Amino acid sequence: MEFKVNQISSNQISRAGTLSTNHGEVSTPAFLPVATQASVKSLSSHEIVQLGAEMLLSNAYHLYLRPGLEIIQHAGGLHEFMSWNAPILTDSGGFQIYSLGKLMRVSENGVQFKSHIDGSSHFMSPEDCMLIQATLGADIIMPLDHCLPHDSDTLDIKRSVTRTYQWAIRAKQNQTNPNQSLFGIVQGGTSIPLRREAVDSITSLDFPGYAIGGLSVGESAHLMYTTLEATTELLPFDKPRYLMGVGSPEHLIKGVLLGIDLFDCVFPTRLARNGSLFTSQGRINVRNQQFKTNLDPIDGACVCLVCTTYSLSYINHLFRSHELLGYRLATIHNLNFILRLMENLRAAIATDTLVEYSNRFLDSYATR
Amino acid sequence: MEFKVNQISSNQISRAGTLSTNHGEVSTPAFLPVATQASVKSLSSHEIVQLGAEMLLSNAYHLYLRPGLEIIQHAGGLHEFMSWNAPILTDSGGFQIYSLGKLMRVSENGVQFKSHIDGSSHFMSPEDCMLIQATLGADIIMPLDHCLPHDSDTLDIKRSVTRTYQWAIRAKQNQTNPNQSLFGIVQGGTSIPLRREAVDSITSLDFPGYAIGGLSVGESAHLMYTTLEATTELLPFDKPRYLMGVGSPEHLIKGVLLGIDLFDCVFPTRLARNGSLFTSQGRINVRNQQFKTNLDPIDGACVCLVCTTYSLSYINHLFRSHELLGYRLATIHNLNFILRLMENLRAAIATDTLVEYSNRFLDSYATR
Repeated sequence: MEFKVNQISSNQISRAGTLSTNHGEVSTPAFLPVATQASVKSLSSHEIVQLGAEMLLSNAYHLYLRPGLEIIQHAGGLHEFMSWNAPILTDSGGFQIYSLGKLMRVSENGVQFKSHIDGSSHFMSPEDCMLIQATLGADIIMPLDHCLPHDSDTLDIKRSVTRTYQWAIRAKQNQTNPNQSLFGIVQGGTSIPLRREAVDSITSLDFPGYAIGGLSVGESAHLMYTTLEATTELLPFDKPRYLMGVGSPEHLIKGVLLGIDLFDCVFPTRLARNGSLFTSQGRINVRNQQFKTNLDPIDGACVCLVCTTYSLSYINHLFRSHELLGYRLATIHNLNFILRLMENLRAAIATDTLVEYSNRFLDSYATR
Repeated sequence: MEFKVNQISSNQISRAGTLSTNHGEVSTPAFLPVATQASVKSLSSHEIVQLGAEMLLSNAYHLYLRPGLEIIQHAGGLHEFMSWNAPILTDSGGFQIYSLGKLMRVSENGVQFKSHIDGSSHFMSPEDCMLIQATLGADIIMPLDHCLPHDSDTLDIKRSVTRTYQWAIRAKQNQTNPNQSLFGIVQGGTSIPLRREAVDSITSLDFPGYAIGGLSVGESAHLMYTTLEATTELLPFDKPRYLMGVGSPEHLIKGVLLGIDLFDCVFPTRLARNGSLFTSQGRINVRNQQFKTNLDPIDGACVCLVCTTYSLSYINHLFRSHELLGYRLATIHNLNFILRLMENLRAAIATDTLVEYSNRFLDSYATR
C-alpha cells in the first residue's frame, strides 16, 4: 500500500490524497460503505461501483462466525467470495467488544465471546485475529483493539490504551501476508492526555496508517471534535488516518476539516432501511404521512438513479407496504448522497475552498 | 389494443404474435412478472426492462387497499406511480375471492370483504371494480369474476360460471376508458361441459381477449391440461388468450403448446425469495448445505447478471445470513430463466421447432 498526499488545504490540516493498493486506488478523503456480512445490504457489486465507492469495509468478527473462514478461503478470499475487485478494509472485532459487550469477556490473552447468532463460545486472541484477516485477504487490516463505552472511568480507559498497545505489538509480530497493510489503532476515550499517550505508544510501532477508534460512541459532538483534533494533530502527516465508525454528513465534514482520510459507518445504510433519507436540506423520513402524495423526488438537487426515477409518494408506499425495493432505493440514495459529499469535499480541497464549501453545505443541511 | 398472430406452429394451435398497446408492444407468448403492490419484489423498473419483460401484472384489489386510489390517481395513474412505461395488465380481485376466501362473502351484487391489512370492511361490485381499474389506467383490465377452489361441487361451479357471466355483462356496460381493453374471463373449474358453457356465454359478449381463470388452483396437472385444451380450442383464434396465475416452466410450455399467449404468476419470484432457483437441469434450493462451498454459478448455462457474477457459495451465505441481496439475486435469476424460456418458445414457434425445443428443455429440466 502507498499513500500520497496530492493537495493540502490552506488550513494546513485537510488533505486530498491517493491510497494505492493491489486492488486499485482510492481517492481520499473517502467514505467506505459497510459490508458487515460481505454484502452492502441490498446492493450488488455493480451498483456499488456505479455509486462511485472505491473501497468497502467488512468485518472479521462477523465473517469468522458466518459463513466461516473455510468457505471464504475456499472461494480464494473475500474479494473473490463477494465479487468485489476493488480494495477492502477489514475491522478486527474490537468494536464488537464494545457493541456486543454483554456477550464478551476481555482478558490479557484476548476476547472470550458468545456468538450473537447461535450462542456458541469462541475465543479470539490478537494472533487469531491476524490469522483470520490473513485468510480474508483484505488490503488493509486492523489489529484487535479494546474499545470502551464513552462514559468509562479513566482507569479503565488507561487499561484499554495499554491493552490496545500490547495487542498491537502482538498483531504486528504475527502479520503473515505482506500484501496487507496493518494499521495501528488509537484508543483513549475522550481523555486528551490518554489519547496523547496512545498516539505516542502506537506510532512508536511505525504502522503504515493509523485508525482512531472509540469516538462517536455516545459522547457529545463537542467532546468528539476536541478529542479528534487533539489526536490527529499528533499523528504523522504522511500516513493515512482512518476515523472508525463515523458517517453522518456533519461528522464527515468535521473529520475532513481535521485531516481524516478514511471513514466507514453503517449510519447511511441503516438509516436508509428505516426510511430516513439525506437531502441537501437535511434528513427526512419517507414514511411520514406528508409524503403520501408528494410527487417530488427525495431531493430535487440529487441526480441519483432513485431521484431521477421515483417519487416520494411511491417510496412512501414501498415502505408502508414493506416492499424490499423500498429499502434498496433508500440505500442507493443515501450512499449516493454521502459519496457525492466526499467527492465534493475532495474537489474543495483541490481548489482550496473547503471551508466555504463546508459552510454552504451545512447551512443548507440545517434548513429543515 | 391490437393483437396480430405472426406465426403459427404446424400443430395449428401454438402461435407467436404481437400485442400492441398505447404503452408499447409485447411479443407473445409472454410471461408477465407480478407487481402485486406496484413493485416486482426487490427489482427496479430499469432491471425489469433489462431482463426483457415487456408487460407487468398488478392487482386492483391490493392497490385499492394500499396505497389507495387517490394516491395513484394523484400520481397520474399506475404507470406513472411505479415508473413503468410499458404495458400493464391489472387483475380484478377475483382471484383474491379464492385465495383470501375466509375474508370474503360473495353475493349477486359483488364481494363483501375484510382488508387483509387492517381488517376494515369493504364492498366491491363489478361496477366498482371497473371504476378502480379505470383509475389505475392499466392497458388490459379484468372484470370481477368468481374463482372457486378446485374441489368445489358442480352446482357451485355452475353458479360461479353464471355469476362470472353476469358480472362480465355489468363490467362491459361500465367500461369508461376507451384506452383500456377489457378481457372476458372463462371459469368452470375442471368440468369440461361447464368450461364449454362458460366459453359460449363469455365469447357471446365479444371481448378483445379472453382469460382462463380457475386453473392451477390445486387440481392435478393432467386435469389442468385436459381442461385447458378443451377450453382453448373453443376460443376465437384471432383474440389473445391469457392463462391466469400459471408460471412454472412445465406449465408455461404446456400452455404455449395449447395456444396460450399471456401468462402471469408469482411462482418464479416467490420461489426465488425462498431460495428455490430454476436451472436448465431442474430446481435447486440454494440454502442447501451442499452449496456452501460450491463455486459454480446457479446455472452454468445461464448468462444472467447473477450467474456471470456470483457463486452458489456466496448466494448460500446471503440466504443463511438473511441478507436482502440474496432475495434480489434469486429474483433476477428466476425471472431471467422464465423470460428466456418464453423467448426461446417464441423463436421455436417462428422456426416451427416448438415440440422439439419443448422436449429438449423438459428432458434436461427433469435431470436433477
